[in-house]
Amino acid sequence: MNILDIITKKKNGSSLSYDELKFAFMGYLNGEIPDYQISALLMAITIMGMNISETLSLTDIFIRSGKAYDLAGAMKYTVDKHSTGGVGDSTTLIIGPMCASLGLHLAKMSGRGLGLTGGTIDKVESIPGFDVDLSEEDFYTQVEELGFALSSQTSELVPLDKMVYALRDVTGTTESIPLIASSIMSKKIASGADNILIDIKVGSGALIKNMEDAKILSEWLIKIGDAYKKNVRTLISDMDTPLSYAIGNSLEVCEAINVLHGKKCPLYNACIEIVANLLSMAKGIDLGEAEVRAEQVLKNGEALKKFYEFVARQGGKLKEVKVAPHVIPVKTKFEGTITRIDALGAAKLAAKLGASKMSLDDKIDYTVGILLNYKIGDKVKKDDTLLNIYTNKYVKFTERDFDFIEVE
Amino acid sequence: MNILDIITKKKNGSSLSYDELKFAFMGYLNGEIPDYQISALLMAITIMGMNISETLSLTDIFIRSGKAYDLAGAMKYTVDKHSTGGVGDSTTLIIGPMCASLGLHLAKMSGRGLGLTGGTIDKVESIPGFDVDLSEEDFYTQVEELGFALSSQTSELVPLDKMVYALRDVTGTTESIPLIASSIMSKKIASGADNILIDIKVGSGALIKNMEDAKILSEWLIKIGDAYKKNVRTLISDMDTPLSYAIGNSLEVCEAINVLHGKKCPLYNACIEIVANLLSMAKGIDLGEAEVRAEQVLKNGEALKKFYEFVARQGGKLKEVKVAPHVIPVKTKFEGTITRIDALGAAKLAAKLGASKMSLDDKIDYTVGILLNYKIGDKVKKDDTLLNIYTNKYVKFTERDFDFIEVE
Repeated sequence: MNILDIITKKKNGSSLSYDELKFAFMGYLNGEIPDYQISALLMAITIMGMNISETLSLTDIFIRSGKAYDLAGAMKYTVDKHSTGGVGDSTTLIIGPMCASLGLHLAKMSGRGLGLTGGTIDKVESIPGFDVDLSEEDFYTQVEELGFALSSQTSELVPLDKMVYALRDVTGTTESIPLIASSIMSKKIASGADNILIDIKVGSGALIKNMEDAKILSEWLIKIGDAYKKNVRTLISDMDTPLSYAIGNSLEVCEAINVLHGKKCPLYNACIEIVANLLSMAKGIDLGEAEVRAEQVLKNGEALKKFYEFVARQGGKLKEVKVAPHVIPVKTKFEGTITRIDALGAAKLAAKLGASKMSLDDKIDYTVGILLNYKIGDKVKKDDTLLNIYTNKYVKFTERDFDFIEVE
Repeated sequence: MNILDIITKKKNGSSLSYDELKFAFMGYLNGEIPDYQISALLMAITIMGMNISETLSLTDIFIRSGKAYDLAGAMKYTVDKHSTGGVGDSTTLIIGPMCASLGLHLAKMSGRGLGLTGGTIDKVESIPGFDVDLSEEDFYTQVEELGFALSSQTSELVPLDKMVYALRDVTGTTESIPLIASSIMSKKIASGADNILIDIKVGSGALIKNMEDAKILSEWLIKIGDAYKKNVRTLISDMDTPLSYAIGNSLEVCEAINVLHGKKCPLYNACIEIVANLLSMAKGIDLGEAEVRAEQVLKNGEALKKFYEFVARQGGKLKEVKVAPHVIPVKTKFEGTITRIDALGAAKLAAKLGASKMSLDDKIDYTVGILLNYKIGDKVKKDDTLLNIYTNKYVKFTERDFDFIEVE
């Protein structure tokens, strides 16, 4: 078996066997196969596809590359949640405390940014002191005692996915359904919760660009879950428009706190839907009743209290969260109604400021980003501030940087 | 402009502008863009293709990455030749001396092995002492005085192609017509000869697998030549079967000497055809007459004499050429006729012995290879030696290693 034959086979559209996929990807993990060969293979997979059998194989190879945890064997009501990435999506920071308030156990291992969309770990790292590298013991003790803990993927959890994820991020191979499916499910299965909700974001600002792809991904996620006897549910939600007003790491943390304070917005509704689904799956109760209970913990301040406990327990100092000092207002040129806010365009503008990374060596500036003042349908007058840009450096803007937002 | 957008654009099948191709490939040359991103782009190009305009752009970017020579300005009857690579193809070692004997000037810059097919430089490096890194002055002086010199591509000639060629070799992206066309023509144009013959090999053992692709490549080569006012002719020749009996570096050098001694075989005929075309292009004479004159220099020993002068002038010690000491005969199991000798299968067997390289860090064993005793159509008895394997190490063979040759 040799790697060139395997790359060539996929390039020509043939399907790869378990052993071929294992040879390539475990070889990459072991340092025997260099990144430039795996990136070529990933591109061939992205363009030519993989069938469900190859996807199950790759998921299994990913899981076996590290340690698998048995969370469900250690405690009751174990839940897990994953979002396929969106713009301005800080749901984890809100639903974690909500789940904890409802007696569920969420041991959340998260990733860093993929392409233009930020990862939850990047967001919490904007909180000075926040420790995303908990020891295994501390992590599970916190889940048991507090109901929620957040950690970056440990090097023991699916180490192969961690490497492949980083490489896909910088090689234009993020938008592949089989690669997305095996990446998500390997982590969720190895993390060991019984009830798994996958929030599939669809739209210009998401990894999944259209409804058809979302439905295929949904089917595959459930099939992979079935193979491992996991209770998997999916949500498909729109991401043509940013989920919240904030895009950028520390700005999104502030926005999550606003929602935990009860700020009504699309993000607020999304969090209730997610928590309600997890609660109904884990406790076997009706979705309608679960929704009522989910909103209750937002309204009565229990989730906010849990959030403060959670941040403090992981060392985060919320009072020291910084946003970039240079604020540039972007104003409307005429009166009208906001007809479009494109998530991808907004993410590109944030990326230009340094909010996400374009190559493996880039550094993220946690303090920069944009803060929208309006949502689609809002009416604006001439010279209203449409959005504020938070930046640390001189950036040359062009008209195209702002054409993601339209006033008519 | 950023590299992820460029990769993604090509992945989605769009065509790239001159500036986008320049940004990606010159960035690679300058070390600003890493190999894993270029290999992803190369795979996307290989699968999704490039149109003629993109191919002209890439050729131009390649040429401008280094120094362009004006050979035709310095001497008369300048010719150049390139083969798209085949198995057992040592024509350059034969046609160089033939051209020199006929008063043509061939300043041949060659590459190393690409995939399973060996490069001319690898072959002459099997001659102890042979210097493939001539100074520019020595190289052109030798061409003027002797009529023929052979050098590895200098770092000044199309340095970008050299890097891309090495990366394609190990990433399964060798079989792309636009990449092949721009690679070949950039080198030929920068080398500066007026009359260029491209020998397109077609078949299982060649980069080009079918006649349709060969015809497209031929058209593109001529179009690129036209854009630079070069006299370009193409030959399309079969490579389903190895061109000669020898596959492996030092074994092929020995076989070239046999042909220069007048050994009649498919390789002998191929060399006459190539030289006759070059002669007729350069001197504007009839192809039939050119064929007669080409064969003459093989028959009267002039080409052989030139070959000895050429090797000696570049420091090679022919008497010290070694073949691997362990010779394993492969015998027929029954009487019959040889119906098939598959070039790709033969090359794979030679590669297994170490005759070519599978990754950038591999080393070639110049002394190993296989030597066929028969050609298609020959009759064999039971226990005849079909071929001999020359090896330096213990290799475990399976039945599949030998199924490239069939007796019925």
